[in-house]
Amino acid sequence: MSTFGKLYRVTTYGESHCKSVGAIIDGVPPGLKLTEEDIQVQLSRRRPGQSDITTPRSEFDTVHLQSGTEHGVTLGTPIGLLVQNKDQRPHDYTETDLYPRPSHADYTYLAKYGIKASSGGGRSSARETIGRVAAGAIAEKFLKEAYGVEIVAFVGSVGKVALPFEHEEDQVLGKEYMNLVKTVTREQVDAEITRCPHKATSVKMEETIRAAKAANDSLGGTITCVIRNAPLGLGEPCFDKLEAVLAHAMLSIPSTKGFEIGSGFRGTTFPGSQHNDPFVADAEKGENRLRTTTNWSGGIQGGISNGEDIYFRIGFKPPATISQEQETAQYDGTAGTLATRGRHDPCVLPRAIPIVETMAAIAIMDQVLQQNARSSTAALLAPVTHLPPTMVFPGQRKE
Amino acid sequence: MSTFGKLYRVTTYGESHCKSVGAIIDGVPPGLKLTEEDIQVQLSRRRPGQSDITTPRSEFDTVHLQSGTEHGVTLGTPIGLLVQNKDQRPHDYTETDLYPRPSHADYTYLAKYGIKASSGGGRSSARETIGRVAAGAIAEKFLKEAYGVEIVAFVGSVGKVALPFEHEEDQVLGKEYMNLVKTVTREQVDAEITRCPHKATSVKMEETIRAAKAANDSLGGTITCVIRNAPLGLGEPCFDKLEAVLAHAMLSIPSTKGFEIGSGFRGTTFPGSQHNDPFVADAEKGENRLRTTTNWSGGIQGGISNGEDIYFRIGFKPPATISQEQETAQYDGTAGTLATRGRHDPCVLPRAIPIVETMAAIAIMDQVLQQNARSSTAALLAPVTHLPPTMVFPGQRKE
Amino acid sequence: MSTFGKLYRVTTYGESHCKSVGAIIDGVPPGLKLTEEDIQVQLSRRRPGQSDITTPRSEFDTVHLQSGTEHGVTLGTPIGLLVQNKDQRPHDYTETDLYPRPSHADYTYLAKYGIKASSGGGRSSARETIGRVAAGAIAEKFLKEAYGVEIVAFVGSVGKVALPFEHEEDQVLGKEYMNLVKTVTREQVDAEITRCPHKATSVKMEETIRAAKAANDSLGGTITCVIRNAPLGLGEPCFDKLEAVLAHAMLSIPSTKGFEIGSGFRGTTFPGSQHNDPFVADAEKGENRLRTTTNWSGGIQGGISNGEDIYFRIGFKPPATISQEQETAQYDGTAGTLATRGRHDPCVLPRAIPIVETMAAIAIMDQVLQQNARSSTAALLAPVTHLPPTMVFPGQRKE
Amino acid sequence: MSTFGKLYRVTTYGESHCKSVGAIIDGVPPGLKLTEEDIQVQLSRRRPGQSDITTPRSEFDTVHLQSGTEHGVTLGTPIGLLVQNKDQRPHDYTETDLYPRPSHADYTYLAKYGIKASSGGGRSSARETIGRVAAGAIAEKFLKEAYGVEIVAFVGSVGKVALPFEHEEDQVLGKEYMNLVKTVTREQVDAEITRCPHKATSVKMEETIRAAKAANDSLGGTITCVIRNAPLGLGEPCFDKLEAVLAHAMLSIPSTKGFEIGSGFRGTTFPGSQHNDPFVADAEKGENRLRTTTNWSGGIQGGISNGEDIYFRIGFKPPATISQEQETAQYDGTAGTLATRGRHDPCVLPRAIPIVETMAAIAIMDQVLQQNARSSTAALLAPVTHLPPTMVFPGQRKE
Repeated sequence: MSTFGKLYRVTTYGESHCKSVGAIIDGVPPGLKLTEEDIQVQLSRRRPGQSDITTPRSEFDTVHLQSGTEHGVTLGTPIGLLVQNKDQRPHDYTETDLYPRPSHADYTYLAKYGIKASSGGGRSSARETIGRVAAGAIAEKFLKEAYGVEIVAFVGSVGKVALPFEHEEDQVLGKEYMNLVKTVTREQVDAEITRCPHKATSVKMEETIRAAKAANDSLGGTITCVIRNAPLGLGEPCFDKLEAVLAHAMLSIPSTKGFEIGSGFRGTTFPGSQHNDPFVADAEKGENRLRTTTNWSGGIQGGISNGEDIYFRIGFKPPATISQEQETAQYDGTAGTLATRGRHDPCVLPRAIPIVETMAAIAIMDQVLQQNARSSTAALLAPVTHLPPTMVFPGQRKE
Repeated sequence: MSTFGKLYRVTTYGESHCKSVGAIIDGVPPGLKLTEEDIQVQLSRRRPGQSDITTPRSEFDTVHLQSGTEHGVTLGTPIGLLVQNKDQRPHDYTETDLYPRPSHADYTYLAKYGIKASSGGGRSSARETIGRVAAGAIAEKFLKEAYGVEIVAFVGSVGKVALPFEHEEDQVLGKEYMNLVKTVTREQVDAEITRCPHKATSVKMEETIRAAKAANDSLGGTITCVIRNAPLGLGEPCFDKLEAVLAHAMLSIPSTKGFEIGSGFRGTTFPGSQHNDPFVADAEKGENRLRTTTNWSGGIQGGISNGEDIYFRIGFKPPATISQEQETAQYDGTAGTLATRGRHDPCVLPRAIPIVETMAAIAIMDQVLQQNARSSTAALLAPVTHLPPTMVFPGQRKE
Repeated sequence: MSTFGKLYRVTTYGESHCKSVGAIIDGVPPGLKLTEEDIQVQLSRRRPGQSDITTPRSEFDTVHLQSGTEHGVTLGTPIGLLVQNKDQRPHDYTETDLYPRPSHADYTYLAKYGIKASSGGGRSSARETIGRVAAGAIAEKFLKEAYGVEIVAFVGSVGKVALPFEHEEDQVLGKEYMNLVKTVTREQVDAEITRCPHKATSVKMEETIRAAKAANDSLGGTITCVIRNAPLGLGEPCFDKLEAVLAHAMLSIPSTKGFEIGSGFRGTTFPGSQHNDPFVADAEKGENRLRTTTNWSGGIQGGISNGEDIYFRIGFKPPATISQEQETAQYDGTAGTLATRGRHDPCVLPRAIPIVETMAAIAIMDQVLQQNARSSTAALLAPVTHLPPTMVFPGQRKE
Repeated sequence: MSTFGKLYRVTTYGESHCKSVGAIIDGVPPGLKLTEEDIQVQLSRRRPGQSDITTPRSEFDTVHLQSGTEHGVTLGTPIGLLVQNKDQRPHDYTETDLYPRPSHADYTYLAKYGIKASSGGGRSSARETIGRVAAGAIAEKFLKEAYGVEIVAFVGSVGKVALPFEHEEDQVLGKEYMNLVKTVTREQVDAEITRCPHKATSVKMEETIRAAKAANDSLGGTITCVIRNAPLGLGEPCFDKLEAVLAHAMLSIPSTKGFEIGSGFRGTTFPGSQHNDPFVADAEKGENRLRTTTNWSGGIQGGISNGEDIYFRIGFKPPATISQEQETAQYDGTAGTLATRGRHDPCVLPRAIPIVETMAAIAIMDQVLQQNARSSTAALLAPVTHLPPTMVFPGQRKE
């Protein structure tokens, strides 16, 4: 459905050629300072036309808050917001409308709903993501103010061009890669047109994107996202383990094909003795707080955040809409050649960065509310005193 | 939380040392022939002690149906079921209890709930999966009878030993691998002790598992799962795209680290012109039904099933509990050496096969109910006649 | 939260002094003919200023569809819609802002959210209901087209003035009252300024409202609502019995204090032998379809609709905001006299009629989708043949 | 469906003639001392055969905890529990099985599910309530320990015999009635066989029940329930107003026909000037905490608890199963006379008391968790300082 989350609930509407796209965000904590500018930042990072290696369409997406704030502060009531569409009319039928675009959503939307929007893939349009980005920008703001959470995503590969140090021989993940995960900032990411924060790789990525564009072709790639300073204890086993919720969030983004947490698929090739993350005392955080010396777990153990950096990688397929001629079939089965005209996004990776970050923020925010419900309610009970001290966690209980 | 699904709702309870583990399954269609034997099959494939390369503990898990059926037929009311635990007492505290096991759930469970079960990781125990497997076995039975759905999972790699043909140069995925996806049966899978249906690879996997066992170490690996004959139109965009729901389901299984649908991460390295799946008429299924000639999409386009095989790959990390000595810290931060005694599962992959299959069945069953709600309700309306024929899907509407 | 429903999901936003109020409706069946006019009808029946016995504020609430339809037909994707607010600024603080209005939501909203909207009760404003009315108008349209469902509500009492025939001695409910339930139309209801379709009573109601208005006082009352032609089998026991869902829906409407289904509280005073509804064959509907000769059950038995008229009664308290001086306390506890200026609605009953009808439509629509999910899915199974014929219901199963 | 609640989630299974009835309770706060005895108390108050004016069947319902506690303390993981059924076999078919019992669930269950349990009404059996009562007993224990919440229900009327002082002329509700609401204890309620704590009325009720029993007839009635010391701020507008959630909970109990909060339907006949509850400072609770001098609101304003006693009344219809001959129709429409043999409960009111109390506890517990999620999360933000002092509630924000 079009709602994500249990307590921080994001509901979106809108497709390509309707009047507006928007969202209702329910469960925003009251008392958060919030203006349209706070939301606009991520929308502007998402919008098309930022550079000539993404889509050349020039749209400017301005958010309009409708409700839920007053005097610059959230009221705790639902926030309604919307962004006008430039092209508000269903388009005219042309010959290309006889063809479902290969690997696009045209055919499956028609089959599922029994009726086809003129824009084809309906809600599979990239414009659908505007509501999420706006909703996630609000979550980000809260998480930063309440916990100092930092969420940064960066492009790790485009087509066959990848960061050279993601994987090193005999290492679960490369040292430089883990360093990037620990330290990279949004400023460093935005400094590169490709949003790959490693200059040399970024230059090669740009070249490969320009070549794909010239060939009327498209490219996919991967994005790594890190969430720093997320509180300990997030995730609701057994079905809503934190990695399961993050995977759900990420694979709901258009064009995604894979998700891996921490060491991911590569980690499956190492034995437990090398893959386990040893514990050490966390002097900084106080009594009975532990850290791990390595972080192949990706900040999640048993489905619950352990206080380390949460990082994961997402795969994006090459966009389905390309201007090359494709041998395929029409809706009625007639074989033919589809030549989609128009200018298409040869590579969505750079623009997907804010979408990944904001979906991560939405997922984390919802888990924060769920865990706070539990811990603040349990804290009302008298402390458990009849169990050995190692069975009770300090700081979760008012004593 | 401990419930999965919106209309086919599976709620589970139980951890290692309590009286029983079990589930309530709500939303089972009435009129399905169902006995305990139908459920036992998958439970027996999941249980420990099936071979000496998995856990040597010998438990036999017998399911007891409590409600929801009469005269061998489901009533449409919730099905309660349970499996007794052999070891029903909280265990005694030993020195190893001073240590949270590295990369296990001991520390995060303690931190999240503020209190520690004697069994450590509480619901992260593998016994938790019994409820899911039972619930999924019921879903499987329905899906097979109603649609002829086949769900088969197989082990694709263990540690560094992998099927030799998963990837071929210049091919999105290997031809032999895709052939396995199309044709492999549960019988073929169960013929091998490792549940890798390629004899030569299976032999090597067995060797590597025995070596790990001898070294008191553990191994992870990957599983591929295919769902055949799932109906067209499953998945609920924009947030509950079918791949997002499957990823959620799979990453809720203990020890999972990654999920990829169809061509997955490898697909991100190919351009759109090679990655797109061309359409052809599906003569067999009738008017306006299309198939694709390749299936890099993994049976899902725009978050909706397209009628092709749905296949995906899941990564499992090596089990955290190993008998090697590990330098780590106690709950109070004291550094020390943990030597976990006892016999542990060196590799969970073979036993995870039925867990993957049944979680897939649960996810698909829930989507079937949601899509049937829509299509059967929309079918009550008069047909839309003012739109061009390509805008309306035949067969979705009673005419 | 601000979402109602599981499959027909209505999410609303907006309060008195924000830019707009609106809703996202997810789960609308595709292929429904729908225009803004279809929705406007009920919004116009709800809007203030229709007569001088309700609020004298003159607002005109025009709905703007944002998404989810094209060429006048629903696409199955979420419908976004909104109505602009006339007064879009938070108001200035005046002396009356020091007082929480007695029996209004000012104090509880402040305590719950910790922060106070300038308009006081935030989402408890009557403008909040606009989103529901619009969402319900869409549900009504579908239910009428698919099943011929008719939903009609009417005012049964205002203050101490009530229909004279609701209760008759020794009758569970009065004969004329039951006749009204069976036959009353929206046209008959709208013919009276009070929306009480019994002329003589309506005249008295109008008098009592005018007297209350003159006395700067307010009046409550009751509304009866009937749903005709709802399909057999709606309601999801054990927790979502149809009457439970209807009660939830009705008591979520501002100012409601009570709900009773069928014979309601009065029915509790009659013995089972008089209260039970005997069955007879329903020749019209075909094999094994039964009707009842009386309908004290209110169309629901065991939490499930039985095909008879579903009718219920809702109590509305007198509006809290009155212009009389009231001895009460300020937020800081200081005792004082509150004199609320401005012109207030002396009686909300007439305007509540479309709110009741549309909330009923939303609740029924959601149940229709849930039951259709079950019955269309179960119908895919082979018929049950090993049970006696009285154990299987014809028509639920394709044979 | 068979799950109630969003964060305190109660899922139940079981009908009359299956092996057991039970529940899974998810979201129980960790660290609550809990034994089977804590739960048994309310189950024993609910069980049949407590006196000869309710059902003469003698069953003893012993609860068996399966999971979620260790060493007498909750772990925060799901609690599984069950009660064995005495009669575990589907019964034999007799002539009465040809008849759907009038006003019972036989016909609607058959129509909804397409298949009929031998016990007829399936989950509409009173045994279904066992799971709720157990789940509510746990919630009660928590609420008492954390907040000192007291929940007491009592019978207010049976058939035409009612407390003489519920309504007094020119009073919204009677003084003695309100006094009962304020002070009545479970001990006082249990002292009377009818659970009506007013001796003289109880004696009359007993007589009327014995007369009905002798006449093979049945009687309904009303129950009042009060919740004392519930925290301020519960309820989630706009759809999950506290009274809406309570109404949903209460009308999900078998045989209920009506719900009214506070002054209820009677309150609708008084003008606002008499019905409004004036505020006064609450010296005991501290700064900016208010109380009301009357409580016609029933402890809820704007859908949110205001700290006063929450009280409501529920109507129960006379049980449908009576031993009198009834003219009615068989499943196939054949007219005939049904004479149900066996001994039936002439009046369920006394046994319904613990069901009402525990459902109230479940509903309140779920709201407590939701509000604590909000308030504990909002408390992490810096205090709002740019608004006037009356706009910010002290105590909700850490300063």
